[in-house]
Amino acid sequence: MSNPQPDAAHRAFVEDKARKVREAARLVAALSTEDKNKALEAMARQLRAHQGAILAANAQDMAAGEAAGLGTKLDRLLLTPERLEAMLHEIEQVKNLPDPVGQEIDHRQRPNGLDIRRVRAPLGVVGIIYEARPNVTVDAAALCLKSGNGVVLKGGSDAVHSNRALVAAIRQGLADSRVPPNAVDLLDSIDRGVTAAFLRMRGLIDVIIPRGGKALIEFAVENSLVPVIETGASVVHVYVDAAVNAPMAVEVILNSKTRRVSICNALDTLLLHRDALEAVGDPLAQRLAASQPPVEVRADPAALPVFARHLPQERLKPVNPNEDYDTEFLDYRMAVRVVDSLDEALDHIRRHSLNHTEGVLTDNPQVAERFLREVDAACVMHNASTQFTDGGQFGLGAEIGISTQRLHVRGPFALEGLTTMKWLVRGSGQTRP
Amino acid sequence: MSNPQPDAAHRAFVEDKARKVREAARLVAALSTEDKNKALEAMARQLRAHQGAILAANAQDMAAGEAAGLGTKLDRLLLTPERLEAMLHEIEQVKNLPDPVGQEIDHRQRPNGLDIRRVRAPLGVVGIIYEARPNVTVDAAALCLKSGNGVVLKGGSDAVHSNRALVAAIRQGLADSRVPPNAVDLLDSIDRGVTAAFLRMRGLIDVIIPRGGKALIEFAVENSLVPVIETGASVVHVYVDAAVNAPMAVEVILNSKTRRVSICNALDTLLLHRDALEAVGDPLAQRLAASQPPVEVRADPAALPVFARHLPQERLKPVNPNEDYDTEFLDYRMAVRVVDSLDEALDHIRRHSLNHTEGVLTDNPQVAERFLREVDAACVMHNASTQFTDGGQFGLGAEIGISTQRLHVRGPFALEGLTTMKWLVRGSGQTRP
Repeated sequence: MSNPQPDAAHRAFVEDKARKVREAARLVAALSTEDKNKALEAMARQLRAHQGAILAANAQDMAAGEAAGLGTKLDRLLLTPERLEAMLHEIEQVKNLPDPVGQEIDHRQRPNGLDIRRVRAPLGVVGIIYEARPNVTVDAAALCLKSGNGVVLKGGSDAVHSNRALVAAIRQGLADSRVPPNAVDLLDSIDRGVTAAFLRMRGLIDVIIPRGGKALIEFAVENSLVPVIETGASVVHVYVDAAVNAPMAVEVILNSKTRRVSICNALDTLLLHRDALEAVGDPLAQRLAASQPPVEVRADPAALPVFARHLPQERLKPVNPNEDYDTEFLDYRMAVRVVDSLDEALDHIRRHSLNHTEGVLTDNPQVAERFLREVDAACVMHNASTQFTDGGQFGLGAEIGISTQRLHVRGPFALEGLTTMKWLVRGSGQTRP
Repeated sequence: MSNPQPDAAHRAFVEDKARKVREAARLVAALSTEDKNKALEAMARQLRAHQGAILAANAQDMAAGEAAGLGTKLDRLLLTPERLEAMLHEIEQVKNLPDPVGQEIDHRQRPNGLDIRRVRAPLGVVGIIYEARPNVTVDAAALCLKSGNGVVLKGGSDAVHSNRALVAAIRQGLADSRVPPNAVDLLDSIDRGVTAAFLRMRGLIDVIIPRGGKALIEFAVENSLVPVIETGASVVHVYVDAAVNAPMAVEVILNSKTRRVSICNALDTLLLHRDALEAVGDPLAQRLAASQPPVEVRADPAALPVFARHLPQERLKPVNPNEDYDTEFLDYRMAVRVVDSLDEALDHIRRHSLNHTEGVLTDNPQVAERFLREVDAACVMHNASTQFTDGGQFGLGAEIGISTQRLHVRGPFALEGLTTMKWLVRGSGQTRP
């Protein structure tokens, strides 16, 4: 992407909105859970009431998108009555999550009698930059309000009419609640200078969250003066130990690979201990061949003959170690490598992992604990499908993504990640010596 | 500060060191607490053994600094046998802190039997940029190693010989331990292009921590592609409610202002409820006048006559609201404003706070709880001196600073802030529906 410089008009446009959101956010931060939940209900009511206007605005975006040749991106842009209902269901789910604001993180009593608690507090104003997916408009607004924040949205220019209609409905809903309508606003400009100005609003925007592909995330990281929380790519490994329940391993591997192939927690490279190659590799090859659609395997020389027993020629290729081991396939495709030890598996993971999700399948508790301790990833799984990496599956509720960064939030990025902390100190007149 | 661009040689110099530190950091991450503590002991032993070389190197920096006219900065650069002993004492304190790595943050059991724990894990490689204060070299190295990290140090160019000697001793100590010497390295260059290259080492450095003045922090934030953790400035308020124990209030205010005036948690603006003006203001004015050195007060029109009873003319001035209310005095000076209500105090704080430390003095629990809930600051104190904002006082041990940012760490930035988290999932073959 290019590196546009914002001019004074871009800055003024963004600053005016950001200031109003900031002012409103202060009030949202102090609201009760009940008030925030009522605002979410009002938001949902108005989205339903505005359905006609929203679908009409979306039709305008769709027509422009077709004319511009958006191709496969059109499906993500499309809104239907069913998709609007799904958004309302998402709002309902966020409403039902526990309020993170005020939750106690820890509590200590000092020898001088001071009572010190660390509690969650809103981040302030969250900036979201995303592509032409109107559903993000609604779920980002719901998550940010529930966590006591204001939110400035900058959606893809191809969805500008849809987003305007959605945000108008959301703000009308807020007008019936104690959340000020200004707590949610949209930078409804298609000018890249506006995005650049947005990324420079240090002091008015507390954090930027890019939601989208690699190019969008890189653009935000490279141009932002505001801290960015990234969610990113993955190369997911499963290591199958010598001591393993083979039928369990086959089911977990199959689920890790095939439940959904297009998501970031899907298995990419299977590391099979040589002593498990026959017991796990053979039945696995059968199941991969029978899977619909069948899974293509890129096998190393040791694994090749075992997988060749069941997989047709067009579904089995020799692995290209320089490429396949570093590929996030996002498809019905996986790499298989045979290793002679846990150390060899750990070494492979160290060199190829993007530190997202890694799994071990073993009945040996020492192997499991070493893997859990030594593997450096956001989520490390023992005897469980890698596809469990998900806010809902972890019991955290709706998520913004899976954070592969190390600061602030790592792994499922849910409501709690939209808060900061605050130390509350209660004394009885203590002075410091 | 200027905005230097790194060239290929700068990048190669930094990248070579950063890669070696990263390789070593992987091993440090997996070490036991005992191994890390033994490394800290070995580090301290070698610093003591190298005392002669370290003092000689420091003398070289001091001579150059005098020739260059460093002035008051020379005192921070100076090393003496006593100051070296203080550093060793600091290492000892870090050794005695509990190891944060592996500590459980939370634990949940899912309906499908999955056991999900979130534990602390090292950040990886920490980059520290600081000024000509050689003590930072030692305490940053100790804190980073104890938290399982590698560290790349970039000290001020005026301290380059001192830092070389210190890091040589530290690395020689590590050679006697299970921590690889490469876990600590110094960018011993005085070229600004090296600093610029350092700030761009995304993927090799996980976080940059600037330790120093405002200009240094701004330079890091504006030029870094690596996430930066800032510690910053403050304007500290204390609000004295109508319902207050006056003698307690006087002691706490005095301590908040005068215990040390040059630190970020010292009181700047006192907000006195009109009904407490006589009971608190009068004895406070006496004590401020008698304090050594006496404190200068910038009072609003309502407070002026009360403070004029005791403070000599040269110590009492009418407040300049456009300036004094936004000043971090860092001196024997404070502003006083009379307010008519808690709301007026909260509004003042909202407009002037830098969200560091704010205090309320009251016997009314409703007032205290509202203040604790509504004030948006890293640390909020009830009936306690603002000078308690400190890692040691909070029971967290040695700190890197007080974070006024909202992401990752807020308030005392101690050992825990040098870790990230990791989710450990233990199953028995669960697959995701």
